[in-house]
Amino acid sequence: MSEGNDTPTTAELDEIWERTKNWTRWGSDDERGALNFLSDAHRAEAAATVRSGRSVSLGNDITTQPTPETPSPAHHHMLASGDALGASGVPGYEATQDYVGTAVHGLGITHIDALCHMFVRGEMYGGRPASMVRSTGALANTIMSAANGIVGRGVLLDIPAARGVDYLEPAESVTIDDLLAAEDRQGVTVTEGDLLAISTGRDARKAAIGGRLDPFGGGLAGLHPTTLTWLHERCIALLGSDGISDHMPFRSIPEWPFPIHQIGITGIGLHLIDNLRLDDLAAACAQERRWAFLLAVTPMRVPGGTGSPVNPIAVF
Amino acid sequence: MSEGNDTPTTAELDEIWERTKNWTRWGSDDERGALNFLSDAHRAEAAATVRSGRSVSLGNDITTQPTPETPSPAHHHMLASGDALGASGVPGYEATQDYVGTAVHGLGITHIDALCHMFVRGEMYGGRPASMVRSTGALANTIMSAANGIVGRGVLLDIPAARGVDYLEPAESVTIDDLLAAEDRQGVTVTEGDLLAISTGRDARKAAIGGRLDPFGGGLAGLHPTTLTWLHERCIALLGSDGISDHMPFRSIPEWPFPIHQIGITGIGLHLIDNLRLDDLAAACAQERRWAFLLAVTPMRVPGGTGSPVNPIAVF
Amino acid sequence: MSEGNDTPTTAELDEIWERTKNWTRWGSDDERGALNFLSDAHRAEAAATVRSGRSVSLGNDITTQPTPETPSPAHHHMLASGDALGASGVPGYEATQDYVGTAVHGLGITHIDALCHMFVRGEMYGGRPASMVRSTGALANTIMSAANGIVGRGVLLDIPAARGVDYLEPAESVTIDDLLAAEDRQGVTVTEGDLLAISTGRDARKAAIGGRLDPFGGGLAGLHPTTLTWLHERCIALLGSDGISDHMPFRSIPEWPFPIHQIGITGIGLHLIDNLRLDDLAAACAQERRWAFLLAVTPMRVPGGTGSPVNPIAVF
Amino acid sequence: MSEGNDTPTTAELDEIWERTKNWTRWGSDDERGALNFLSDAHRAEAAATVRSGRSVSLGNDITTQPTPETPSPAHHHMLASGDALGASGVPGYEATQDYVGTAVHGLGITHIDALCHMFVRGEMYGGRPASMVRSTGALANTIMSAANGIVGRGVLLDIPAARGVDYLEPAESVTIDDLLAAEDRQGVTVTEGDLLAISTGRDARKAAIGGRLDPFGGGLAGLHPTTLTWLHERCIALLGSDGISDHMPFRSIPEWPFPIHQIGITGIGLHLIDNLRLDDLAAACAQERRWAFLLAVTPMRVPGGTGSPVNPIAVF
Repeated sequence: MSEGNDTPTTAELDEIWERTKNWTRWGSDDERGALNFLSDAHRAEAAATVRSGRSVSLGNDITTQPTPETPSPAHHHMLASGDALGASGVPGYEATQDYVGTAVHGLGITHIDALCHMFVRGEMYGGRPASMVRSTGALANTIMSAANGIVGRGVLLDIPAARGVDYLEPAESVTIDDLLAAEDRQGVTVTEGDLLAISTGRDARKAAIGGRLDPFGGGLAGLHPTTLTWLHERCIALLGSDGISDHMPFRSIPEWPFPIHQIGITGIGLHLIDNLRLDDLAAACAQERRWAFLLAVTPMRVPGGTGSPVNPIAVF
Repeated sequence: MSEGNDTPTTAELDEIWERTKNWTRWGSDDERGALNFLSDAHRAEAAATVRSGRSVSLGNDITTQPTPETPSPAHHHMLASGDALGASGVPGYEATQDYVGTAVHGLGITHIDALCHMFVRGEMYGGRPASMVRSTGALANTIMSAANGIVGRGVLLDIPAARGVDYLEPAESVTIDDLLAAEDRQGVTVTEGDLLAISTGRDARKAAIGGRLDPFGGGLAGLHPTTLTWLHERCIALLGSDGISDHMPFRSIPEWPFPIHQIGITGIGLHLIDNLRLDDLAAACAQERRWAFLLAVTPMRVPGGTGSPVNPIAVF
Repeated sequence: MSEGNDTPTTAELDEIWERTKNWTRWGSDDERGALNFLSDAHRAEAAATVRSGRSVSLGNDITTQPTPETPSPAHHHMLASGDALGASGVPGYEATQDYVGTAVHGLGITHIDALCHMFVRGEMYGGRPASMVRSTGALANTIMSAANGIVGRGVLLDIPAARGVDYLEPAESVTIDDLLAAEDRQGVTVTEGDLLAISTGRDARKAAIGGRLDPFGGGLAGLHPTTLTWLHERCIALLGSDGISDHMPFRSIPEWPFPIHQIGITGIGLHLIDNLRLDDLAAACAQERRWAFLLAVTPMRVPGGTGSPVNPIAVF
Repeated sequence: MSEGNDTPTTAELDEIWERTKNWTRWGSDDERGALNFLSDAHRAEAAATVRSGRSVSLGNDITTQPTPETPSPAHHHMLASGDALGASGVPGYEATQDYVGTAVHGLGITHIDALCHMFVRGEMYGGRPASMVRSTGALANTIMSAANGIVGRGVLLDIPAARGVDYLEPAESVTIDDLLAAEDRQGVTVTEGDLLAISTGRDARKAAIGGRLDPFGGGLAGLHPTTLTWLHERCIALLGSDGISDHMPFRSIPEWPFPIHQIGITGIGLHLIDNLRLDDLAAACAQERRWAFLLAVTPMRVPGGTGSPVNPIAVF
């Protein structure tokens, strides 16, 4: 097996795919995947760790202006502003209204990927065919699997801090050694049912380069494909990153251009959260001297949906 | 002062308005209103009460079909379904995408109202003029005041249960006596910083009348305007209901057609959550024998927004 | 063959389908269907008939409020109104902007159906498979076939006038005899390349019943399926109606619930225009004493589109 | 008065503004502005000039991908593609549907500006205040003024051809001399009621620079402000350009950054069409040896709208 930043071969990824596949782990009808690792008991334990009550958002602001990060930004349309406060015609009733809409995926918006977002060779998690994701909505593996929310123990692994740098460069991969080093430095161990957030320092890098980051042109740091085995072994329930967990642009491994999404979502059954905002969280962790916290992720209940914008909230 | 279901006069509402107005309570720059009652300490206390770890959603599914409850439903548009899995042209990259958009307000979608959603006589919370809510977005009192989430102690008051009925009829008002009776029956007391959810049995009524409920035509039960003084005294941080807290159709009080929204949002500074799904929560409360729980409300971070769809999650 | 208002059998429709199918008429690559009947020469002849220069719209207003006719109405969102005229920050530049969006099809909006809008047994016009209409857009038979506009001789056949009534009842079918009677009464003959508009008196009926017409509940008059042979023989280039040409609700012919759309679009290759506004046009025709005119239909150039909202304009 | 490419002063523009203002020309209630120049008689004359019947579109394709020309592109969302052809559940009914939406204005989409799109010093055409353009739609000067379509004599003035070049550079202005030279070369005279299209060679320039044109960064050629007097004198009914008639970026005249839009729309009462596609039209004109033709512009009937996407069609 290749190590470090070496690019694995297709055969190596095929092997990881087969080894980490959880399609039968929770029964043939299962649509929740690794969320099954997050039990009520884990959730209760996570709540019991709350001390200061400080809360921090892991979400980026919804952007409505095109930027290199959000070439297809959200829409925020006022349906009635203060200039139309009397529009209802009911004396005394003065109100405003708006509309918000967004493409769920992309490299800017903080969003969760449902298990119907990715396929491998025409199949999604559980071996269900791509044809079950219809133009009128998905028939299985939808975001409704997380309709009751994902609340549990969140853990942040701050890779730049573990390396002693401000941020990773786009070409740099997060390796298993990085993950272990971060655990060691922070005094935390990722365990079954955890909601894992991995920082590559995207926010710091964005600030350092003047605020305009172009992930399509300039790339984003990501996890080395070999970390999939570690993610699988640790039995995490959810994976998020300030990037998209995968490298951008995708690594040039034939058939596996996007291995964390392909194997993580489709094989392991991991819901992914892309484009987390982690600088405030990292600062809070450092101040609170804890890298584990209660984390609440509450997707929109979109029947047939391939994901949802989210604003994850950490409580210390 | 009128009592019970009597309709108050405009003068009585004027008096409640003046008496409960919190515009100077947290300083002239404040945009958070009653969310100021929810401190980190309250949040920590709420987390400490978690026992079983059971989690329950208080959100309705996003509806995309026009119904009497959602005459202007959300849009869920697949941008790429399984029939286009190879659209990227990158061999092996097989993905689906979608778009979700919605009017934030209305009588169907579970949503939170920001403090810029309502005005009284041309002014919003803090005395800011309606002209600060522009067609390009609000300049103050936006949903960004809740951008770090609203996590705290949730309390459910089950009014039909306290009355020994399945649900309230639309013409029935929830009075202060009802609130006190529910507290008494449930053995819970609403205190400062609480996130209060009030059930009128909308879900049970909807089921009883065959699943099609028309709140525009048939009305919704709501809080009697005199409860505003109680809500103010109890210093709750957030108010939600399975209706819209106010009666639908609005009571015919001149200048105060919609008093809970008008005085609650604009005067007291209460963010409201409309159209909560409370039947599952009530069942869980009964089973867990507790009517208080940890509640996580995580609005979308929409700069300039008048509110957000939400999927509040309770943890027992 | 059945006549009058009798409902044909499946076998009879099968026979009409085979007899009127134009799939090989203009070559195997053709995507324009009956638009091929509209030549430059026809267009020039049509222009030469203009006398008074009077122009009349055949389009309904875009509706943004839910009505029984438009349960999923269009969106018209102001992006900047007068309250934000200085938003650009450029001194002197004062502008407003808006957004308009709509579902293309339905029973309210005036729109044209492209040849990829309908299939018969999984195939669209030309025998192309349904799988060519992808979630990312259609690959053939799109509205781009009409990207250069449809300008030619329009003819109105006013069926209620020919029958001496104000409007047809929803259960009434337009028969070949009706079409011939209207031609005779009006002194006009439908010929090759014509853009045919058929009035059933929808606007008059809507006015007569108080302005609220529910085509989903109460139905719409339509063409009897046997008229397909007449439409085919006359070699019209385009068919429109103040209804949807077909009956609503659909006739209960097994496999052929919607024969004008199914056979007209898929077999004959007719672009259809649904929900024309024809009362003003009929009044103008009566005043001008002509039922033929120059007609301009200019669809939006939507690559991959299944149709387009249109505002057809007649010039006398 | 400045000539040629010299930039006029604010005082000079103030003078043009006053001199060309048509606010009282058609009565104080008028909302049609220069469309009043287009009479039924003009329309009939225009139709009478049709010879070959050839039709050409002046519209660009609706773009759904972000480009430098369309940073906020349109949405084309399939609501049901071939993978959902049986979604209705009615045996035999097999259909597809889509949604199209777009911001009306910008530098890419071919669209018409209504008279409520621009203000000068807080007033729009007719002296109506900006406050009449509400977040819920405009109350006056809307695109409904053109609801019956704009059909008349179109004239193309091909400025690059008159100069003997392929295209104008962004910094170059179209002057009155250019317009006169184009008339002279083409043997056509712009007269009252004409729908005037002015080519600066944008399409040729776009092709020459490799297909990616960035009008925000690289600019667009436009009309010199002094041409406003000529446009006013000629009594045209409509003005369009392959750019936006004005220069991009705007000229740096204090208070008049955008004079063709400001004075043309607000003072003269000209509906403008921006981003016409004129290369095919110019080629057709050259082949047909005529620069006048019948032109049909059919805006969507959007009550309250500030404009509409259009696909203008020329018939020779």
